[in-house]
Amino acid sequence: MTDYDPEKFYQGLVKHKLIYPVGVKGAFGRGAVFEDVLDRLNRLIDREASAEGAEFMHFPPIIDRKVLERCDFMDSFPHLVGTVFSFFGKDAKALEVSSRIHQGQPWGDMLAMTDVVLAPAACYPVYPCMTGTLPKDGRVVTLTGWAFRHEPSDEPTRMQSFRVRELIRFGTPAMCLEWRDAWHKRGLELVQSLGLAASSDVAADPFFGRGGKMLANGQIAQKLKFELLVPVISATEPTAVCSFNYHTDHFGKPFEIRSADGEIAHSACLGFGMERCTMALFKTHGFDTEQWPKAVRERLWP
Amino acid sequence: MTDYDPEKFYQGLVKHKLIYPVGVKGAFGRGAVFEDVLDRLNRLIDREASAEGAEFMHFPPIIDRKVLERCDFMDSFPHLVGTVFSFFGKDAKALEVSSRIHQGQPWGDMLAMTDVVLAPAACYPVYPCMTGTLPKDGRVVTLTGWAFRHEPSDEPTRMQSFRVRELIRFGTPAMCLEWRDAWHKRGLELVQSLGLAASSDVAADPFFGRGGKMLANGQIAQKLKFELLVPVISATEPTAVCSFNYHTDHFGKPFEIRSADGEIAHSACLGFGMERCTMALFKTHGFDTEQWPKAVRERLWP
Repeated sequence: MTDYDPEKFYQGLVKHKLIYPVGVKGAFGRGAVFEDVLDRLNRLIDREASAEGAEFMHFPPIIDRKVLERCDFMDSFPHLVGTVFSFFGKDAKALEVSSRIHQGQPWGDMLAMTDVVLAPAACYPVYPCMTGTLPKDGRVVTLTGWAFRHEPSDEPTRMQSFRVRELIRFGTPAMCLEWRDAWHKRGLELVQSLGLAASSDVAADPFFGRGGKMLANGQIAQKLKFELLVPVISATEPTAVCSFNYHTDHFGKPFEIRSADGEIAHSACLGFGMERCTMALFKTHGFDTEQWPKAVRERLWP
Repeated sequence: MTDYDPEKFYQGLVKHKLIYPVGVKGAFGRGAVFEDVLDRLNRLIDREASAEGAEFMHFPPIIDRKVLERCDFMDSFPHLVGTVFSFFGKDAKALEVSSRIHQGQPWGDMLAMTDVVLAPAACYPVYPCMTGTLPKDGRVVTLTGWAFRHEPSDEPTRMQSFRVRELIRFGTPAMCLEWRDAWHKRGLELVQSLGLAASSDVAADPFFGRGGKMLANGQIAQKLKFELLVPVISATEPTAVCSFNYHTDHFGKPFEIRSADGEIAHSACLGFGMERCTMALFKTHGFDTEQWPKAVRERLWP
């Protein structure tokens, strides 16, 4: 496939029942074959994570609002967050909500903030679980979770809700940096072993507003974040399918995590964008998995 | 296990790393063994669903807000809904959000409603995908999805966010009723085959407010809903682990689904509460899966 027309790629995914359109952007359904490939990729990563002795955890798509507040998420990414609002009223107010909906009028002002928000990244629920002192060699946790980003888009790789397979390392600064760099290499090899034309680059998070550019430049200068890039909807602007992040003490400090030496623990994480990796496979190898290269099939259908 | 102390059961789940407490009620993490049992149960249901030729679909935990509005969800269950609010402002407002959070002040009024809500039941995203005319024999769809209910509780079986494995039948009234009743029997056998002391009863949804009691009575009188009940946190008030629902034209009408004869299609669904079934297994057979009865292990570790 040499053409990189996002609309045509989207229509191809729909035509092959790999995704099902819904009434809002970036929230489409996934078909049976799409899910099967995504699962198989996840199990391939399972094998790597198990070999490393990572602890498996699993969390719902919502997290404690205080987690977001304690790690200053709204300072940097207020535009991306999704918070959960519910109705707290009695009968009369409930009737008004119904009546407004039936009349097509706004009803958001009838609701109030709850104690939960959508997880902005799959790893966020893990940090408060780590409060305390780590074992001597630190810890590695792995999970697959739903992340939410309020960025409705027609581009299929930019979703409001998507799964990320993460590994998270806790320990001393040296442990975290060494781990992040080793996984950077290992992740690139893994993605390339699936026949994807992946390259790697230093990267920055999508910080908000006028101050955001400066924060992004700082992150790049310190080489805190690397991404693996694969052409999915554009040859010239490839899509980030995996990222490798060194957090320094960004989570260790607010959640009071200490390494065995008594210092504030550092952390690092890596995340495979599961839908993006799956789309990269369909873009690269075509919509019919039976026709995928033998080497790729052997990796995913072992 | 003869005691039914919810607090003790919760502590047992925590002690055995089957669940991980978090800072809010009903949003705990799930441990590796808990997830493994849940997956195995899901694969057991996969085999039943495949035998029936069900179409597999998968959806994110958020859905189009209009879906909720079109099927009158807020008329009946306004207290349970979770809607997603985001920040739409520019720099100055973003600074105010940050400042309020750092000062521990409320910041919900700085946000506004988005186009998405949390799925209140796993099957909701399916209905708008069915608009149009069904094949002659109707359709059966199956999926596992996250449902949200705004009902924070200390009781471990009452979660704010949980997975439901659903099968959904579309067709004529006769097709849907016959299917619902056949699955009612089949579901009971499936749950009993796992050594769970399940019974079945007619049931009602948790309708809101003063009018709710009347709606519930109507639902019971018409036998629209049945539930499978298993003692998990109480012997006298067993927990609903599975439900079987006949919707009549509740979804066919707003989403313009027609059966092959041109009439408005009816629908029925069944849902296994995956966390509740998993907890029922741990409550019934103990926290150590190695010690579970041979017949149960053969079903889940085939």
